[in-house]
Amino acid sequence: MDAVFSALCKHGYADLTMQSIADEFPKSKSLLHYHYDSKEDLIVAFMEQLLEGFLDEFDEDSDVDPLDQLVRMAESVVVGKGDGPDDVHMALLGLRAQAPYDEAIREQLVHNDQHIRERIADIVRAGIEQGQFREDVDPDQFAVLFRSAIEGAQSHDVILGEESPTQTALESIKQLLLERLLVDGETVEGSVA
Amino acid sequence: MDAVFSALCKHGYADLTMQSIADEFPKSKSLLHYHYDSKEDLIVAFMEQLLEGFLDEFDEDSDVDPLDQLVRMAESVVVGKGDGPDDVHMALLGLRAQAPYDEAIREQLVHNDQHIRERIADIVRAGIEQGQFREDVDPDQFAVLFRSAIEGAQSHDVILGEESPTQTALESIKQLLLERLLVDGETVEGSVA
Repeated sequence: MDAVFSALCKHGYADLTMQSIADEFPKSKSLLHYHYDSKEDLIVAFMEQLLEGFLDEFDEDSDVDPLDQLVRMAESVVVGKGDGPDDVHMALLGLRAQAPYDEAIREQLVHNDQHIRERIADIVRAGIEQGQFREDVDPDQFAVLFRSAIEGAQSHDVILGEESPTQTALESIKQLLLERLLVDGETVEGSVA
Repeated sequence: MDAVFSALCKHGYADLTMQSIADEFPKSKSLLHYHYDSKEDLIVAFMEQLLEGFLDEFDEDSDVDPLDQLVRMAESVVVGKGDGPDDVHMALLGLRAQAPYDEAIREQLVHNDQHIRERIADIVRAGIEQGQFREDVDPDQFAVLFRSAIEGAQSHDVILGEESPTQTALESIKQLLLERLLVDGETVEGSVA
């Protein structure tokens, strides 16, 4: 999967080939071809691994409180790990643009989308049960909006580069969206450790 | 510009050529080459025209009240004009994915993004002045969040196809985002004619 990611960063999806992935693979090339028939199979496995990593990182049963989880998720999805456009986010942008023309990629994106939305809704439910979030919020509806907002901001970050209002996007997600979850009088600044 | 759009829908950006645009152009091909040097020039002009159409449609000085303008903008951006994925939205997805690799397209997207965000903020300001929206909302911050949310929902609609939670996204934008603008006690359902 590291080889898929490296090849994807170097070539983009349009110019990706089995050979370009094999070039990044330190072990036997025949091993690669034995397990995967096509670059599409490899991409689908790569996206499955991205999902697993995401779900491991944000878990409604963890010790981290629900608001903190959603704040961390927003930061991770909108900004990524480093300075400047995130390589994973750039690769995802290319894969998403391919979805209308490639059923295997679209199906995997649908799968990932459903699981990520369910996880967001589960975290909101945990927050309501713990008394941190308001009871009149619909977790599934909130999950759809939260996901649209963080992914829209991520796309803008990658697409617009330095001109992107990424920090404002992140602040607005915390103050206008996440604060709406909190019981009256609480603020995101005051609640997050 | 109709020829650019037709060619873009048929071929996608990756396979677009001056010839494929010329094939859709009913007048003299030399006229096309006289005005535009490359497919990139044509795409930039096409995006400029999309922006102008958008700004004409949503105008803070119009007779339509500010909340209604933002509701219509959300519907237009998230769902588009017809059933199923919107052709313009599909073309935009491909162009956006190209931005990291193509400076002319990125610059035009940055230009469009700034103007659209300013227009949203101007509509919010008009709503505050008219007493429809709360005074404690920061119009520029709200504009960034609103734009992330509606574009994220648009992308999901195109990328995920029939599995996309598009109607829920639209409802959540109205109820969770736009209602936050309204002075206490008002609802989007009750306010929009």
